[in-house]
Amino acid sequence: MTPLLSLARRLRRTPFSEGVEAAGVRAYTVYNHMLLPTVFESVEEDYHHLKQKVQVWDVSCERQVELRGPDAGKLMQLLTPRDLRGMLPGQCLYVPMVDETGGMLNDPVALKLSEDRFWISIADSDLLLWVKALANARQLEVLVEEPDVSPLAVQGPLADDLVERVFGADAVSLRFFRFGFFQFQGHDLVVARSGYSRQGGFEIYVEGSDLGMPLWHALFEAGADLDVRAGCPNGIERVEGGLLSYGNDMTRWNTPFECGLERFCNVQTAIGCLGRDALLRVSMDGPNRQIRPIEIEGERVPVCDRAWRLLAGDEHVGQVTSAAWSPDFDTNVAIGMVRMTHWDPDTELMVETQEGLRPARVQENFWI
Amino acid sequence: MTPLLSLARRLRRTPFSEGVEAAGVRAYTVYNHMLLPTVFESVEEDYHHLKQKVQVWDVSCERQVELRGPDAGKLMQLLTPRDLRGMLPGQCLYVPMVDETGGMLNDPVALKLSEDRFWISIADSDLLLWVKALANARQLEVLVEEPDVSPLAVQGPLADDLVERVFGADAVSLRFFRFGFFQFQGHDLVVARSGYSRQGGFEIYVEGSDLGMPLWHALFEAGADLDVRAGCPNGIERVEGGLLSYGNDMTRWNTPFECGLERFCNVQTAIGCLGRDALLRVSMDGPNRQIRPIEIEGERVPVCDRAWRLLAGDEHVGQVTSAAWSPDFDTNVAIGMVRMTHWDPDTELMVETQEGLRPARVQENFWI
Repeated sequence: MTPLLSLARRLRRTPFSEGVEAAGVRAYTVYNHMLLPTVFESVEEDYHHLKQKVQVWDVSCERQVELRGPDAGKLMQLLTPRDLRGMLPGQCLYVPMVDETGGMLNDPVALKLSEDRFWISIADSDLLLWVKALANARQLEVLVEEPDVSPLAVQGPLADDLVERVFGADAVSLRFFRFGFFQFQGHDLVVARSGYSRQGGFEIYVEGSDLGMPLWHALFEAGADLDVRAGCPNGIERVEGGLLSYGNDMTRWNTPFECGLERFCNVQTAIGCLGRDALLRVSMDGPNRQIRPIEIEGERVPVCDRAWRLLAGDEHVGQVTSAAWSPDFDTNVAIGMVRMTHWDPDTELMVETQEGLRPARVQENFWI
Repeated sequence: MTPLLSLARRLRRTPFSEGVEAAGVRAYTVYNHMLLPTVFESVEEDYHHLKQKVQVWDVSCERQVELRGPDAGKLMQLLTPRDLRGMLPGQCLYVPMVDETGGMLNDPVALKLSEDRFWISIADSDLLLWVKALANARQLEVLVEEPDVSPLAVQGPLADDLVERVFGADAVSLRFFRFGFFQFQGHDLVVARSGYSRQGGFEIYVEGSDLGMPLWHALFEAGADLDVRAGCPNGIERVEGGLLSYGNDMTRWNTPFECGLERFCNVQTAIGCLGRDALLRVSMDGPNRQIRPIEIEGERVPVCDRAWRLLAGDEHVGQVTSAAWSPDFDTNVAIGMVRMTHWDPDTELMVETQEGLRPARVQENFWI
């Protein structure tokens, strides 16, 4: 049974909460101490609509950590094993953030606003505390703050149509993971071609809470004939697409290599990264467990509210950390971490849910 | 309308979740990325029972940050403006934690296990990241980790009876904010006289998740004739008692002085505290706003899910951040932050809730 969520100021509302409520939000999760909608009509209705139309998502919980000052670039490189030397203003980069042991602290998207100014658009951990402490203890010349910036995502196959109507043709000429500044009611807002779905779209970094509801209304008015709806990151679509979730599919106990993020790690050249030494070692040996797509057989799985053990006979060989019934693929799709002895495609395993054992199979690819 | 909470692995279950569910938990909040029960029968039923009997609370979400090593004490003092030189093993201390500007990062209880080992029992922020970064950047000889320790609280007027039955007479001879090691099924567990209520009681720091449900069952079996029930921090009782909540009543934007925590700040002698210089300045000038008990007139207030502005005429003079209808005091009790121009007892203000304006009055004392 789905429990209720007790509201309090500590679970921060967003500049779009009024719109989200008027659109009939049914459930939330809590992410970075903030409300993140999870269901409007139903997870499956939302899923079909996302794949066919266009949705507006309140992802304010993707809080920003702003670095500003002469040492901003140096601090950025301290945080991540990705080599940032070639990063250009106007570029977004997915940057695993690691501690001194190479353990994942967050998996944000970073935006380079200028040579001395970055936004880190964070997943669910208080990365601000990590960054502030390092900046202070290393006496770097950089200001670190959480600005009043709340991302609003426009996702789905009709996202270009909607964004063009509100921000103009130049906005939709953006390439993937690029951003520009576009006007809304006299304010320059960062608009990026990015987002937490495989359906394409944009994220608008709404700077100034007061602009939240005016932009929300403008998008819904402009998109009425497109059947635009309020939506949210979808638990089925993101697992189909293999989009990882920090705290679900990986934690501080995992390296980026275990998460299959080796292409975002340049351990030879990312000089200055705090976790580089530890990851150099890992990159030589390779991980002995890694994220894999997993299919779970049989009827609809229960809610994946805990790590499910993966078993080969009596042997514990990994765990499933996200799972959902996929209407489009007519099976249960899942994300797991599997030991190398059992990570080859088509390996047959059993998965232990809170409602009993199910046959599962390692897949070659996610469902995209 | 109370929304639903979507469950996922990211919202961690606890060693006691099975017991909490069997006891009929109705609602949760999320605290340190973990489930914290908020309602069993109803907030008011739970409140009356807490004040009359004894409850067992799953407060696993009070995660521990463990410091261990020769520099553990030095690191502790770096974190807080409270002078820790006199702290003894076996002692708990409430220690505001501040950043370099004196802004509150957390308001934990620290336990000194030995000269080179501490647990910091944290409120809702990832303090681990702050502490780990400082330890690393300052090259301190200390290990910083989140151990497998989950507190279980026993609270209420009959708490001594119950704890004596399970842990023996020595446990109930503990003075307030002292702890000792007491046996349960062959394991030495930290038991402290402490807890997040004004009704008295204990917190048992359950080390090893496997011990969780055996201890849960032992407490319920031992306390059957005491009418022991599953409970949780109570939103009415804690506001009556003036127990602050990090994220609700204070944030990083507040100093300990604004929170009325000056008695836990020894800015003259807490040498080594990172935020000491900033707080020395604040201690000389005094804060210009501070936490106050606030009474809100009229019928039951709505859920305080956002900061409510406090107004004196048109002037914005503060905010209410927690509020509840108190059956025992037959009024709405609240916690607010009020500007010094309006913080004297009996000052009459208006408070702006999401359902309109209400008369409010600054109080001299909390309802204890």
